[in-house]
Amino acid sequence: MDLTAAIADMRAVLGATNVLTEQETMADHGDPFAPPGEWYRPGAVLLPQSVEEIQAVLAIANRHGTPIWTSSQGRNKGYGGGAPRLSGSFTMSLRRMNRVLQVDEDNCFAVVEPGVRFFDLYEHLRKTGSKLWMSVPDLGGGSVIGNALEYGLGYTPLGDHFGQHCGMEVVLANGDVLRTGMGGMSKPRAWHVYPHGCGPSLDGLFGQSNYGIVTRMGVALMNPPEVYMPGWLTLDSEAQFGPFLDALRPLMIDGTISNQPMIINAVCAASAFWQRDHWYTGTDAIPEEVIDRIAATPGFGRWVMRFALYGDEPVVEHNRRKIDAALGAIPGCSISYEKYDGRNLPPMNNPHHVVQAGIPSMALDQMTRWYGGEKGGHIGFSCAVPICGPDGTAIRDLARSHLNAAGLDYGAAIIVTRRSMIHVALVVFDTENEPQARAAYKAVKEMIPVAAREGYGEYRSHIDFMDQVADQYDFNNHAQRRFAETLKHALDPRGILSPGKQGIWPKN
Amino acid sequence: MDLTAAIADMRAVLGATNVLTEQETMADHGDPFAPPGEWYRPGAVLLPQSVEEIQAVLAIANRHGTPIWTSSQGRNKGYGGGAPRLSGSFTMSLRRMNRVLQVDEDNCFAVVEPGVRFFDLYEHLRKTGSKLWMSVPDLGGGSVIGNALEYGLGYTPLGDHFGQHCGMEVVLANGDVLRTGMGGMSKPRAWHVYPHGCGPSLDGLFGQSNYGIVTRMGVALMNPPEVYMPGWLTLDSEAQFGPFLDALRPLMIDGTISNQPMIINAVCAASAFWQRDHWYTGTDAIPEEVIDRIAATPGFGRWVMRFALYGDEPVVEHNRRKIDAALGAIPGCSISYEKYDGRNLPPMNNPHHVVQAGIPSMALDQMTRWYGGEKGGHIGFSCAVPICGPDGTAIRDLARSHLNAAGLDYGAAIIVTRRSMIHVALVVFDTENEPQARAAYKAVKEMIPVAAREGYGEYRSHIDFMDQVADQYDFNNHAQRRFAETLKHALDPRGILSPGKQGIWPKN
Repeated sequence: MDLTAAIADMRAVLGATNVLTEQETMADHGDPFAPPGEWYRPGAVLLPQSVEEIQAVLAIANRHGTPIWTSSQGRNKGYGGGAPRLSGSFTMSLRRMNRVLQVDEDNCFAVVEPGVRFFDLYEHLRKTGSKLWMSVPDLGGGSVIGNALEYGLGYTPLGDHFGQHCGMEVVLANGDVLRTGMGGMSKPRAWHVYPHGCGPSLDGLFGQSNYGIVTRMGVALMNPPEVYMPGWLTLDSEAQFGPFLDALRPLMIDGTISNQPMIINAVCAASAFWQRDHWYTGTDAIPEEVIDRIAATPGFGRWVMRFALYGDEPVVEHNRRKIDAALGAIPGCSISYEKYDGRNLPPMNNPHHVVQAGIPSMALDQMTRWYGGEKGGHIGFSCAVPICGPDGTAIRDLARSHLNAAGLDYGAAIIVTRRSMIHVALVVFDTENEPQARAAYKAVKEMIPVAAREGYGEYRSHIDFMDQVADQYDFNNHAQRRFAETLKHALDPRGILSPGKQGIWPKN
Repeated sequence: MDLTAAIADMRAVLGATNVLTEQETMADHGDPFAPPGEWYRPGAVLLPQSVEEIQAVLAIANRHGTPIWTSSQGRNKGYGGGAPRLSGSFTMSLRRMNRVLQVDEDNCFAVVEPGVRFFDLYEHLRKTGSKLWMSVPDLGGGSVIGNALEYGLGYTPLGDHFGQHCGMEVVLANGDVLRTGMGGMSKPRAWHVYPHGCGPSLDGLFGQSNYGIVTRMGVALMNPPEVYMPGWLTLDSEAQFGPFLDALRPLMIDGTISNQPMIINAVCAASAFWQRDHWYTGTDAIPEEVIDRIAATPGFGRWVMRFALYGDEPVVEHNRRKIDAALGAIPGCSISYEKYDGRNLPPMNNPHHVVQAGIPSMALDQMTRWYGGEKGGHIGFSCAVPICGPDGTAIRDLARSHLNAAGLDYGAAIIVTRRSMIHVALVVFDTENEPQARAAYKAVKEMIPVAAREGYGEYRSHIDFMDQVADQYDFNNHAQRRFAETLKHALDPRGILSPGKQGIWPKN
């Protein structure tokens, strides 16, 4: 791919300082956990600051036929960061488009640009005196828009980030600007409160896609709850993992637990507090007896669930009793709570309490340091699964056996939503240990088709697996991909927008 | 449009009895409230019973270039029923595809075909001994799928029917079969519990659209609540309508009220129980003093809100107190409740209690009989609006003044969702009174652009207004329509699927 001619044109419209071509300045826009050697890297990084500059970039890209991989912040950690699927192509980062355009205190929403990080939105709310709460993922450095578009999850009752968006502005491959839903009107009053327009709903097209560049989005916020009560559940017995999921499911469906709990196994729980060599220095997978020692540590277990209750005191207290009755009855299960005044939160030290209050933090970045310390990295093997004992144990056993066979630890973080859960095998490795890093990628690639045969599809994937993951969606001779590519050809005939994203390629 | 040759081919594949061409047999597939004279009517009605028969129908349609307007049941009352936008074209009704394919008691969902009516699903659940609750709109005779695809609303906590679907199967114009989300895999476990696949989310494309024919869909159900408590709120003071909306909004956003309340004005409330001549026999709009008399009737008011609480007894009682404190404090506001054992519902006479328990009924069909009795009809002028006093009063004043000027009564049914509301001016008329029917259509057509200039767009529209409504979505030279038509050309190059639906036309 020869970007040389295009780069000159890009510099002319963006200014030389907003077109990066040096490896060191580009590094922060690539895959933060890249293994040593050849890997996905941008050929140049573009930093537009406005819709007009994006349009100018697209015009140049169409003229030269040079693809543009878009990232909002490039913090898609575990899935490739901001690195392009086609190594050497342009990465366009929207970090400079970082305005909070609106906060509606009455209707409880914000409108943001893609460069707005969770940290930025939170700071904006506090600075302007707003009392509203937001939702954040485990790490606060990512883009609010980017995370939602990747179907990322957070941990307040607003944690379904894509589901809690309302209304988008999108720049298409030809530079045209589309606004979804009621934004289709010139002076809409309901753009960010009503999720449709009159006709087909287009927002879903821009999730995990290469059909357009989202340049603004509405994001739901909420009033602070009277009581914020994070809970911490430990389950000593591995054998009770399945029954536990079956007991949890009705509490999710009926909203007794209204946030998105995260269920983590002992290895993953430990990784938030220690590096691996605190527990084990062998180069094989961590043995069962060591896991049992971790599990026996006060506050730990074979499995741990963090969750939280939000609302008026009597409701929270009722739900707490209901959870205690339903889950506390499971052998080996203990639950503890802390109670905060949601309208007047004190500083909180426990990073899980912070995150579940919608406060951005980087404390849980520690989990990536299990192997390798500062040089630790991870990739996610992340399947959508029903909240059911048989499904949960099946995906656990599958991931554990494959990872252990590859000499890797099985760290699991299961994010539970109202009617399904995402089982993330957080495959952690030392990015400077090439054999280990390659083993991690290899193990995930081996698991993907095995999981698919059992009925479990990935909800998100690293750029290195995108084609393979797409291959698993094979109903009716890959009808989904054929459909997606028909749209791609119609919307981006030159194939300039993020080719290969989620296995969707242009004709050329 | 000459269907003759195509009809012979359709009969060969569907059987002669499943191709209707007589006006009397076709009548039930048209617009039930058609005014006298020329109107939108199918040229022939097709009744396939399977995906394979739909594919055969589409092959014939592509060959002959004869458009097919699809309806699930044809009960899109107030918006054209099953009548096609292009009068004289085929209507394909999916009434014979009426199987409930699955009920998952653990994960609380059903999978249905498009011919399954709310009545059918309810009967299936009761017959099979299921305790699960569903959501229904005011009339139970429509299709579960059809209603969701039109963004129809119901009144249990599952009342956002499109939002509560999960996973679709769709036959495309070329006969190809697409399954959305995790259904993209051959053996998915999470198709009807996780709303995305890995890549763009396609479901929204099939809402209010002509891109495909939805042949199955997952629908969320819920466990019965311990307590079901329908409430009835009356507001005597028209002046308090705005403040009332502002007090209601936070109760919706925080989920204190978890269903979708309906706020109806005195005229609309009265129409559920009486015909108009009980109150007024003039041919002009019903005068204010008569409305005041209706409002003074016990149980009525200038505005009435029906809503309901669902859940464990302490939570329901807490929420009831919270509602009483927030809304009961408004001058002229009274609230009453009834309390039922949700797990053992008695027979209920009040049609509002029935509907809010997710039990299909036709009792509220009475509202269409305000003028004209059995020959009464209505059209909806239905805008999406923030739950805000200034917006609510603006759309009220706009609709009232236009309708009254046309000699028509202003009947309003406002369906309130978590963050927005749909203000439906239920424009009721006597279908046999041609001047009155024409005046109703004319008044709505006059209101549409006026509302759009104020920022209020329609969420759904009668076939007679579809182009005009689409015209209001004019941001960036009608970017939404241009985008929608690009997709249309890509997915249906011959333009055979429901041309003109929501103002989206094929190239030809």
